[in-house]
Amino acid sequence: MSIPSKHVEDLVEHFASLPGIGRKTALRLVLNLLKRDEDELKAFADTLGLIKEKVTSCKVCGNISDADMCSICSQNSRKHEIICVVEDIRDILAIESTQQYFGVYHVLGGVISPMEGVGPNDLNIDPLIDRVTEGQASEIILALNSSMEGDTTNFFLFRKLADFDVKITTLSRGVAVGTELQYTDELTLGRSIINRMPFDMNLVRK
Amino acid sequence: MSIPSKHVEDLVEHFASLPGIGRKTALRLVLNLLKRDEDELKAFADTLGLIKEKVTSCKVCGNISDADMCSICSQNSRKHEIICVVEDIRDILAIESTQQYFGVYHVLGGVISPMEGVGPNDLNIDPLIDRVTEGQASEIILALNSSMEGDTTNFFLFRKLADFDVKITTLSRGVAVGTELQYTDELTLGRSIINRMPFDMNLVRK
Repeated sequence: MSIPSKHVEDLVEHFASLPGIGRKTALRLVLNLLKRDEDELKAFADTLGLIKEKVTSCKVCGNISDADMCSICSQNSRKHEIICVVEDIRDILAIESTQQYFGVYHVLGGVISPMEGVGPNDLNIDPLIDRVTEGQASEIILALNSSMEGDTTNFFLFRKLADFDVKITTLSRGVAVGTELQYTDELTLGRSIINRMPFDMNLVRK
Repeated sequence: MSIPSKHVEDLVEHFASLPGIGRKTALRLVLNLLKRDEDELKAFADTLGLIKEKVTSCKVCGNISDADMCSICSQNSRKHEIICVVEDIRDILAIESTQQYFGVYHVLGGVISPMEGVGPNDLNIDPLIDRVTEGQASEIILALNSSMEGDTTNFFLFRKLADFDVKITTLSRGVAVGTELQYTDELTLGRSIINRMPFDMNLVRK
């Protein structure tokens, strides 16, 4: 049996089109919304309807922003010659929360994925090359997820950037802090032996 | 670090106010929405903004409906003297999908829950009493979930309805079809022994 209201059905369809939300969850969300004040719903709807219009991309790094330049690119105190390449803004939030990075970012907006029909031209890659060409960068940190798509994109970027006089680095991979060796997968443990590094007293947790 | 766009932040707040959706999930949903066409977002926003205005309650049973009377109450072929009392429309969808019930419904819109500040007056109970008073009902099926709140509400309704000449029944509780006895909890297994019933060849799965 279908839902006995076309309007509820339509709204359920919209919610169910979101990633990770099925029809049952969508109906639960809509029933919850029906119990709210009209004003609250209008505010939600207005924000949703205007989001595409109001939110723009930073013209430098491609991060989502309300202005032409995002809050990170417009900070003079940051090291603008170090550029960390990430997939989307969630990676920026994760890296910023470490408080260990003081360079700037470049947001690709995705990774190369032939399965999902995403090629290099669908990503924010050319502006990155432009930034390097213009001599803005001394180091590019490739910080994409280590999936097959992430690795493909890393490789593509590395080839594009190899001819420039710029240092190309990537995040270190190894045993996670707080993880027991015996439970670490072989690939990670193997890499952490190959990439072993000098012991540093400052990094010991006190 | 917070999201570098007030509009995205606002929309994330709205999504995160929905049940079962945290801030990280909300951000994922919003990033997904930002990749959509403007038209699609407008359609979503319009449906959302108008939902409260367009969707009404069936004046008979309280079910959500686009018209004064819902599609079930307006069916002549159903047995209008048998009323099944449920918490919300999801329970109706579940019961309808069994194709074993041909009566009508009464939607309470919740259950009595002192913890959440929901009392009998917040629920659609008086119209149910009216339906019984007017002699519309010969049987009331109490089909609320067997939680503490559901049981409290069942008890409240039973006391309210006891003086009327109406049969009051409830869903049978017992071992679920396809479940092994050894994995059934004691309460359920105990009830299914107390409420044992005559063997019926027609209910044997073939």
